[in-house]
Amino acid sequence: MEPAGMLERLHAKVDEQPFARRLGMRLVELREGYSKVEMEPSYDNRNFFGTVHGGAIFSLIDQAFGAAANSHGTVAVAISVTVDYIRPAAPDETLYAEAREISRTRRISTYNIEVRNQDGELKAACLAMAYRRDEKIQFE
Amino acid sequence: MEPAGMLERLHAKVDEQPFARRLGMRLVELREGYSKVEMEPSYDNRNFFGTVHGGAIFSLIDQAFGAAANSHGTVAVAISVTVDYIRPAAPDETLYAEAREISRTRRISTYNIEVRNQDGELKAACLAMAYRRDEKIQFE
Amino acid sequence: MEPAGMLERLHAKVDEQPFARRLGMRLVELREGYSKVEMEPSYDNRNFFGTVHGGAIFSLIDQAFGAAANSHGTVAVAISVTVDYIRPAAPDETLYAEAREISRTRRISTYNIEVRNQDGELKAACLAMAYRRDEKIQFE
Amino acid sequence: MEPAGMLERLHAKVDEQPFARRLGMRLVELREGYSKVEMEPSYDNRNFFGTVHGGAIFSLIDQAFGAAANSHGTVAVAISVTVDYIRPAAPDETLYAEAREISRTRRISTYNIEVRNQDGELKAACLAMAYRRDEKIQFE
Repeated sequence: MEPAGMLERLHAKVDEQPFARRLGMRLVELREGYSKVEMEPSYDNRNFFGTVHGGAIFSLIDQAFGAAANSHGTVAVAISVTVDYIRPAAPDETLYAEAREISRTRRISTYNIEVRNQDGELKAACLAMAYRRDEKIQFE
Repeated sequence: MEPAGMLERLHAKVDEQPFARRLGMRLVELREGYSKVEMEPSYDNRNFFGTVHGGAIFSLIDQAFGAAANSHGTVAVAISVTVDYIRPAAPDETLYAEAREISRTRRISTYNIEVRNQDGELKAACLAMAYRRDEKIQFE
Repeated sequence: MEPAGMLERLHAKVDEQPFARRLGMRLVELREGYSKVEMEPSYDNRNFFGTVHGGAIFSLIDQAFGAAANSHGTVAVAISVTVDYIRPAAPDETLYAEAREISRTRRISTYNIEVRNQDGELKAACLAMAYRRDEKIQFE
Repeated sequence: MEPAGMLERLHAKVDEQPFARRLGMRLVELREGYSKVEMEPSYDNRNFFGTVHGGAIFSLIDQAFGAAANSHGTVAVAISVTVDYIRPAAPDETLYAEAREISRTRRISTYNIEVRNQDGELKAACLAMAYRRDEKIQFE
């Protein structure tokens, strides 16, 4: 449906985002309507309880969400995201977020996103909605 | 109600969090049930659209939320956070999150949080809930 | 801005909704970007704990949300709603929901909504987002 | 794990709730951590656009949520619920909500809930969190 190579180019674009590099996030898998992102362990992600800051966990969620929502080749932007925090994460755990599209209409798409550690333990669950524009994603 | 100086010590503790330093966030104001946090402009916060990454905006929200929720001197942890993204932010804008407690019972407290730029333009709105424990926050 | 009488006609239209009548809800106040709705006490709203069913409280929220979101004279539909339940409500309490618009762009508007009883006690807090169409609301 | 017959008694208790009867909802299936609830078509559920009121759809969600959250035999109450509305429902459609527990700790349990019509078309998606008490559900 989309030009050959679009997903490969999007994959690179996602990983090259300055904020992704800043937090040590990289795409593990990207398909239409699906993505999986890894966040490397870092003591720089600690909050004052010594666990991973909620903002770091959410950033991982948002990274997976953005990749999946834009995987159809047209621009999609986050409009509403809810995250339920289930268990604290330790700064030496490797975390993964998987985003799965559960619905897509012309203007709105919706995702279930889950964050787990390297052993599959659930850390957070998320429901996220994107607003979809008609314009294609620009690749330079 | 809480020992003199608790808020000052919490203020320092909040700003010393490695994740806060990593993202350039600092507390501007902290009172019981209220906080305001600033995030300095940074091109390292960009997503692939050139605007501020949703994860950076959420991290700012979560930082204000954590400060306000713990401002009573006992441990409070995020359990559910919803953010509605209203306008994109540019990486050269200074962003502020203000968290206001709207309810607090023994176990649960709830907050309205808003993100604005230096001109007061609303970027995101948030409803957040914390789970409150009986234990006091440890200050070394 | 809108034709004289639009808000009066919308007020009537909101109260005449079969679902509003079914649950005993009526508009107390309607202005552009604001509404207040009352739900009469009813033992028919009980859940199996004897308190007011979460669906009844949410219905009251949604009724206020719909009135406020459509108060500009063009069609707006709910797309994402988050409710935090703060205290149980008893079936003999009169409940009120107030919806306040905190942002409105061409396509999206956002609301803070609170549910209180006749004594002002907070029962639930809500963040809600509507999708706005260009078409005007039809009045027969 | 729980006394034989607990789920059968809970099933009856859920369907006997006055609010469930008021809105024509009944349990189709109930297991530990899972429930499916049906809402009969009704023109009394209409909003002023002629589609099913968001409050009716949410009530169906909350009914499934309450059944699943209490299916372990101890009291669980809703604390935070987010619903994304995907497609409007017509008043002559039969609607079903399915709640699936995705996590349960001593105090908190979390659910994905979906609303579909008789043809399986997705109408709404939901993320919901319950607070769990130690006390057992009372059956008279």
